[in-house]
Amino acid sequence: MTTNGPVPILFDVYGTLLDTASVTRACDMLARGRGEEIAGLWRAKQLEYTWLRTGAGRYANFQAVTEAALRHAVQAIGVRVTEDALSALSGAYLMLDPFPEVASALTRLRGAGHRLGVLSNGLPEMLGPALARAGLEGLLDPVLSADAVHRYKPHPRVYAMGPAALGMPAAEILFVSANGWDVAGAGWAGYRTFWVNRRGAPPEELEVSPSATGPTLDALAEALGVGGPNGVR
Amino acid sequence: MTTNGPVPILFDVYGTLLDTASVTRACDMLARGRGEEIAGLWRAKQLEYTWLRTGAGRYANFQAVTEAALRHAVQAIGVRVTEDALSALSGAYLMLDPFPEVASALTRLRGAGHRLGVLSNGLPEMLGPALARAGLEGLLDPVLSADAVHRYKPHPRVYAMGPAALGMPAAEILFVSANGWDVAGAGWAGYRTFWVNRRGAPPEELEVSPSATGPTLDALAEALGVGGPNGVR
Repeated sequence: MTTNGPVPILFDVYGTLLDTASVTRACDMLARGRGEEIAGLWRAKQLEYTWLRTGAGRYANFQAVTEAALRHAVQAIGVRVTEDALSALSGAYLMLDPFPEVASALTRLRGAGHRLGVLSNGLPEMLGPALARAGLEGLLDPVLSADAVHRYKPHPRVYAMGPAALGMPAAEILFVSANGWDVAGAGWAGYRTFWVNRRGAPPEELEVSPSATGPTLDALAEALGVGGPNGVR
Repeated sequence: MTTNGPVPILFDVYGTLLDTASVTRACDMLARGRGEEIAGLWRAKQLEYTWLRTGAGRYANFQAVTEAALRHAVQAIGVRVTEDALSALSGAYLMLDPFPEVASALTRLRGAGHRLGVLSNGLPEMLGPALARAGLEGLLDPVLSADAVHRYKPHPRVYAMGPAALGMPAAEILFVSANGWDVAGAGWAGYRTFWVNRRGAPPEELEVSPSATGPTLDALAEALGVGGPNGVR
């Protein structure tokens, strides 16, 4: 993708920098052999609840939504768990693993002069520890949370925080997400977008396309002319 | 559930009166043995797109959303299909089968003096033929479509059409849906609600509960003191 020098880049967090599937092992301890199923349903329900609450104008914060989604997921799977176990598992969202290439790719992008930040559904008190644990905290500023506007993506007021914080129009900011629907939302809001299509998914049929697509953040760095990971090591 | 005489009842349509899984056979003709998978993904994506578009303020009508969701679903499954086949399959949404007890239960409810209507995401031109084909058309008035407000459930403006059309507060209307999230949306909007929990699903964790729950519309009729199907035949 063509840019005139460094551009500010805002990243989605869950699924893009941090791997939501990394709770699978913790879920597997609840019900042996069914961790992947629980983790998948948990994540799907978490997103569904953010969309429903935003559509209905019934905001609850991301920690509450995450816990509610887990509660539904374990009941749907038919597992009996204690409140303590639910609460411990909810805490796993503070300790998600980053995808393997993330720290290296962000370091190179930052080194090439790009300003990097995040724009996430997560609460500041969830994002801070999770990004710090993943070794990313010092690389990211601003850290923007949907909680500030009490709505979730893809509500336009969430995406409007980017231009407000950076003092420039959305069209001059690159928004990066692995969630196709989030890329669509940012595109609707006027951003340039890069879709990290980690799973080779088909495009979302929402009448707006990403500016560019690649399988990992290394592909993003390459698309911005920052060179591959091998040249840096 | 206690009522003082007949109450007006508004029904959801897709999944409540009409069985969205009844497209499975048609989907199976696209990819033998994978009809159930396609039908399930199609329905999930259709709902997802209604929520995303409502959250983002990017309305497209239910026919367009239904076709877009099908297009995504067949690509996700990896099936190659012609535009003609997609178009024919989209038409299957005009010919969904009603659940087996629906005509009998609605007839009894109507006979007992309850006014019956529908409040649906579907376009009027989708609802009319589908309800007529299912033998339900004469039983239902009003037929309210979300298209009138260019938003989808659970946006409050959709549910507000009920009190406006019936000339009474939501608290005096019973809203009936098999979709747990739709029951939550109606509850948030102030309706009394009955959840037709056809699959024995766990409750949605959205901080609002149905007024009553049962497995079919026969259970609704019984809850309203209208007697079982055997007494009527």
